[in-house]
Amino acid sequence: MRNAIDILIDKIKEKDNPTVMGLDPRYDMLPECIKSKYGTDVKSVCEGILEFNKTLIDNTYDIVPAVKPQIAFYEMFGIEGMKCFKETCKYAKEKGMVVIADIKRGDIGTTAAGYSNAYLGETLVGDKNESFYDIDWVTVNPYLGIDGVKPFIEDCKKYNKGIFILVKTSNKSSGELQDLKLEDGKTVYEKVAELVNTWGKDLVGEYGYSSVASVVGATYPIQIKELREIMPKSYFLIPGYGAQGGKAEDIALGFKDGLGGIVNASRSLMCAYKSDRWKDTYSDAEYAKATRAETIRMRDELNSAIK
Amino acid sequence: MRNAIDILIDKIKEKDNPTVMGLDPRYDMLPECIKSKYGTDVKSVCEGILEFNKTLIDNTYDIVPAVKPQIAFYEMFGIEGMKCFKETCKYAKEKGMVVIADIKRGDIGTTAAGYSNAYLGETLVGDKNESFYDIDWVTVNPYLGIDGVKPFIEDCKKYNKGIFILVKTSNKSSGELQDLKLEDGKTVYEKVAELVNTWGKDLVGEYGYSSVASVVGATYPIQIKELREIMPKSYFLIPGYGAQGGKAEDIALGFKDGLGGIVNASRSLMCAYKSDRWKDTYSDAEYAKATRAETIRMRDELNSAIK
Repeated sequence: MRNAIDILIDKIKEKDNPTVMGLDPRYDMLPECIKSKYGTDVKSVCEGILEFNKTLIDNTYDIVPAVKPQIAFYEMFGIEGMKCFKETCKYAKEKGMVVIADIKRGDIGTTAAGYSNAYLGETLVGDKNESFYDIDWVTVNPYLGIDGVKPFIEDCKKYNKGIFILVKTSNKSSGELQDLKLEDGKTVYEKVAELVNTWGKDLVGEYGYSSVASVVGATYPIQIKELREIMPKSYFLIPGYGAQGGKAEDIALGFKDGLGGIVNASRSLMCAYKSDRWKDTYSDAEYAKATRAETIRMRDELNSAIK
Repeated sequence: MRNAIDILIDKIKEKDNPTVMGLDPRYDMLPECIKSKYGTDVKSVCEGILEFNKTLIDNTYDIVPAVKPQIAFYEMFGIEGMKCFKETCKYAKEKGMVVIADIKRGDIGTTAAGYSNAYLGETLVGDKNESFYDIDWVTVNPYLGIDGVKPFIEDCKKYNKGIFILVKTSNKSSGELQDLKLEDGKTVYEKVAELVNTWGKDLVGEYGYSSVASVVGATYPIQIKELREIMPKSYFLIPGYGAQGGKAEDIALGFKDGLGGIVNASRSLMCAYKSDRWKDTYSDAEYAKATRAETIRMRDELNSAIK
């Protein structure tokens, strides 16, 4: 069986597209044609979101290798939201997409194992193990050190899954901790990058990258370049493209020979039908066509910068 | 209306007990009398866990001020687990206990707001706001800086809630990141402590403590003492007592005039009926009596070290 990172890279090469579509739905993102079809109670709203997600998947799965549902946008709708999260992940997998759940969990020992078992592996229920979400990849927070990461790595080995560890995030205040200068002249995020190298060394696949990968924001180009050098075997999950200001040419600094990262876009893809670029071409009811058009535009922009 | 931290301290004083009971259930912790009553499918297992939790709450709410369900132990059972989490929190609140959900979420902007809205505040559903969990306090990871904390602080102000920010955790590898020495001689966790001071300054209550509080592990006594000095207005949520090796006299270093922290114990309370100390006194069916006895023992041990 191929390594999780090999499967992801295969998909990226097959679609010739280093994009992951973020699925971070909020009620106000839904087009009127969906809003008007469903009620406004939480069950109906989540059904509307699920239809929205499925339609976006239907219209992109042949050209986009992966989706990244941000679990907070489902958790915020309570139990119904979690059902919608589960169904969204299942549907994307059925369509052949790699599913990266953005959960950013960070805890220790049996607690970290609980999260890992839930999302990547299996939980002991009564006298047998059960799989609840069967997701391909999750994101993990490194603040607690290896105690928080090891249970995930064990499940990566056991169930052939992958993790992206937060190294340098794309947000404005990411530097408050991550950029702190250490006594040896390195920054905290550089130190985390070195830890990620160590943690991932047993899971390097055929392309030379590890299934213990990293999150590296698109908004800090110099740092992308530097982190590519520190972590030559780490595939990057790159948030911050578009809306947050990350440019294709900056992102290209994390790539080598056309490989090295997968770039997330959420709102710019999901709400393409509302954007200045596409709103005159596609109606509200053609929201998924707008998403497809924007996906192709983004793919071509990324590819011309990367290649 | 009193501040969240004032309400928590009121409860601690009223019960004369600085203990929070961790509710981190695993199937293998359940006594036979519960296991034999329920099936082994996930719905039945979660019903068994809920009965276990409720019985522990029934037998301690008059002497313990707060409970801390660790959400991973519910998430790991999928949707049914989340229902059990919700019911557990609701039941503890009905019994007058303060509920601290150990979720350790850490994300940015609208994503952090999603988590905060879900657990502390309200989510926009259709055309109105809805509260899904209505929890009193949650734990938060600081790795992304203020962008990840601000939405929680806003909900703390709006809904009169509190947060515990991870400063120094109790696990073995916590030092890999948290103890890194910075160029000014401080450690990362000391820097985080300074940030927590700043973030919490608008939410200081009548006792002089802030509703933006901190997690400080019991396993590093020198650091507890040091962090008490750096963060004089921060209440400590203290994990690591008992099973992880933290001692009452170490914990006392975080207290002043009998106040300063709330000490978590999970397994030692939940599974007291299996412990060497209580297993000959209480039968399997008397598991909640064993928990009550251990709670009283722990309370007295803590109080004699603190006072």
